[in-house]
Amino acid sequence: MSAYKLLLLPGDGIGPEISAEAEKVIDFLGQAGVAKFEVERGLVGGSAYDAHGVAISEGDMALAQAADAVLLAAVGGPKWDGVPYDVRPEAGLLRLRKDLALFANLRPAICYPALADASSLKRELVDGLDIMIVRELTGGVYFGEPKEVVTLENGEKRAVDTQVYTTHEIERIGRVAFELARKRNNKVTSSEKANVMKSGHLWREVITALHKREYPDVKLEHMLADALGMQLVRWPKQFDVICTDNLFGDMLSDVASMLTGSLGMLPSASLGAADASGKRHAMYEPCHGSAPDIAGKGIANPIAMIGSLGMALRYSFDNAKAADAIDNAIAGVLAKGLRTIDIKGDAPTSISTAQMGDAIVAEL
Amino acid sequence: MSAYKLLLLPGDGIGPEISAEAEKVIDFLGQAGVAKFEVERGLVGGSAYDAHGVAISEGDMALAQAADAVLLAAVGGPKWDGVPYDVRPEAGLLRLRKDLALFANLRPAICYPALADASSLKRELVDGLDIMIVRELTGGVYFGEPKEVVTLENGEKRAVDTQVYTTHEIERIGRVAFELARKRNNKVTSSEKANVMKSGHLWREVITALHKREYPDVKLEHMLADALGMQLVRWPKQFDVICTDNLFGDMLSDVASMLTGSLGMLPSASLGAADASGKRHAMYEPCHGSAPDIAGKGIANPIAMIGSLGMALRYSFDNAKAADAIDNAIAGVLAKGLRTIDIKGDAPTSISTAQMGDAIVAEL
Ligand SMILES: CC(C)[C@H](C(=O)O)[C@@H](O)C(=O)O
Ligand SMILES: CC(C)[C@H](C(=O)O)[C@@H](O)C(=O)O
Repeated sequence: MSAYKLLLLPGDGIGPEISAEAEKVIDFLGQAGVAKFEVERGLVGGSAYDAHGVAISEGDMALAQAADAVLLAAVGGPKWDGVPYDVRPEAGLLRLRKDLALFANLRPAICYPALADASSLKRELVDGLDIMIVRELTGGVYFGEPKEVVTLENGEKRAVDTQVYTTHEIERIGRVAFELARKRNNKVTSSEKANVMKSGHLWREVITALHKREYPDVKLEHMLADALGMQLVRWPKQFDVICTDNLFGDMLSDVASMLTGSLGMLPSASLGAADASGKRHAMYEPCHGSAPDIAGKGIANPIAMIGSLGMALRYSFDNAKAADAIDNAIAGVLAKGLRTIDIKGDAPTSISTAQMGDAIVAEL
Repeated sequence: MSAYKLLLLPGDGIGPEISAEAEKVIDFLGQAGVAKFEVERGLVGGSAYDAHGVAISEGDMALAQAADAVLLAAVGGPKWDGVPYDVRPEAGLLRLRKDLALFANLRPAICYPALADASSLKRELVDGLDIMIVRELTGGVYFGEPKEVVTLENGEKRAVDTQVYTTHEIERIGRVAFELARKRNNKVTSSEKANVMKSGHLWREVITALHKREYPDVKLEHMLADALGMQLVRWPKQFDVICTDNLFGDMLSDVASMLTGSLGMLPSASLGAADASGKRHAMYEPCHGSAPDIAGKGIANPIAMIGSLGMALRYSFDNAKAADAIDNAIAGVLAKGLRTIDIKGDAPTSISTAQMGDAIVAEL
């Protein structure tokens, strides 16, 4: 069995704590002979800034390029609020996305039945919820140029960000959404603000044409992004796959994941296109952030991080067996009533980050 | 008593139906001698396109400029999906906002106790909710240039929208938010994506400086727009006044209004700056849209429209007495258990648009 080359980037805040639990799983899978990893470790975000003065070093970028997959925990925190814009923690994450060309971000919003009461929505609205948000990740207002602040003659400042999308960028993310829908409930909701944005207008045009040409069997609907935000709150189960741009995807996926009451449990995958040799870059991360307020307390939920490792096994390493084992172990500990504080609900007690990691390894 | 010059723009979809109910209130207030209106009527959106081939005619724009306030119902609908971009229904609304320089959009998200069960959130999370979203309305990605689609040499299209903000645009909307907070619970949450957008970075810088200089007595916090979307769903009562840009305000206000279960009840105000003579343009509209799916059925809720008339009396016509009377009449009919279908909840029956309008007039 050849080893999977994995770059682990614990990042900031609770990142190192939850990464340690993922490493327990990595070690266990290796010892059990289920999956062999060659793990490199690197720095990203504030921790990279503290060490190297940049949000990710050239050395770590080279490791990311060489790896089969990157497993990243989270970046950012108030400690780095004052650092220059170009080296702020998020710049490391954005560079990884851009340089590895990870254009397709898959963000599931799943409500685990055991956690339906943890949602702020009424139970019947979210119980069994299973949405997949497909977010475009290397274009739009995140990367378009010009992106600058200039000082005007009158002393005022003027800031500009540019939203840009081209036909092929929209087509390739649309394809990812339609393909996923075919394996799910066969419905795609494409979302933009075609009523006020030219990029939204083009988005709708390209998705409509792609649908007609290549995916007429999939049900397609268009919904304005503001209306979609509303509908997520009103009746989330109407959605199957949501396909949207970088900025709307950022907001809508956060709203969707919060509905589930399972924020600490949701993994995500960011995938590139395959090159001539068939190699495809990929990065896996929890949907939650670095949670600086609870960092260092040993109470963070490692499940999204361990689930992200599971996604890596499934999508990058083609090891569905190991991925299933991880998903089952997570379901197993939940069924036993084990809860970290974020998903505690009415449970009598909660366990620590390390206890949750240990319990998942024991279950494996 | 001099007459208030009001331009009524019923627009599309349910617009004409709910406008008819607002007119009943206008007539009643006139007959009762509480408020005298000089009402002009115009077309906007799809109805203007059908009549004139544009989303608002020059004649109606001149009426809007001359009016003390504009009362607009709603624009848009699938009927006009295929019309050219520049004359789509929304273009009329956007032109009114821009040409009247209505930079401050006030969108309350209020949960009426009688309707708390109509929310998809658990009752305790929304009961008594009272948030004011202050949205910048004449800048950002809605209006920035370039805004275009070009065809590239390889036949692909490339669409561009531009987000632009200057110091003074941010300052003036910040002032509106801080002033409102002083009359409410003294807290402003300013929201952007400073971690990925230069305009967000400038936004945070300008709001922070303004706060320090002019409003140190108000509590200020900054929250990223994606996190704010989450927090609105998780624990909305943490907010008092939210201050944000045009696009984030569009999305966040829709999410917030949906929380309340009162979407058909929420009015909004869009205000300009006072000119040398003290005159200030203003437009009042329901937060909800044109709801083409229920148009013509006589079941739409006219309360947000009538409430918008109330806001006009309060903010443009300085007639708090009449505004209070309207608010009390609305509360009165709700207390009597009268409900249109959108807020029916567990009520035994629902009433029509016209019955609701009549009931409010009777209550007055
Ligand atoms: C940390 C930040 C740059 C990032 C984003 O805005 O994309 C995050 O919010 C996310 O959703 O992954
Ligand atoms: C109709 C549309 C142009 C408008 C907007 O995007 O501003 C609407 O969604 C709103 O919030 O008033």
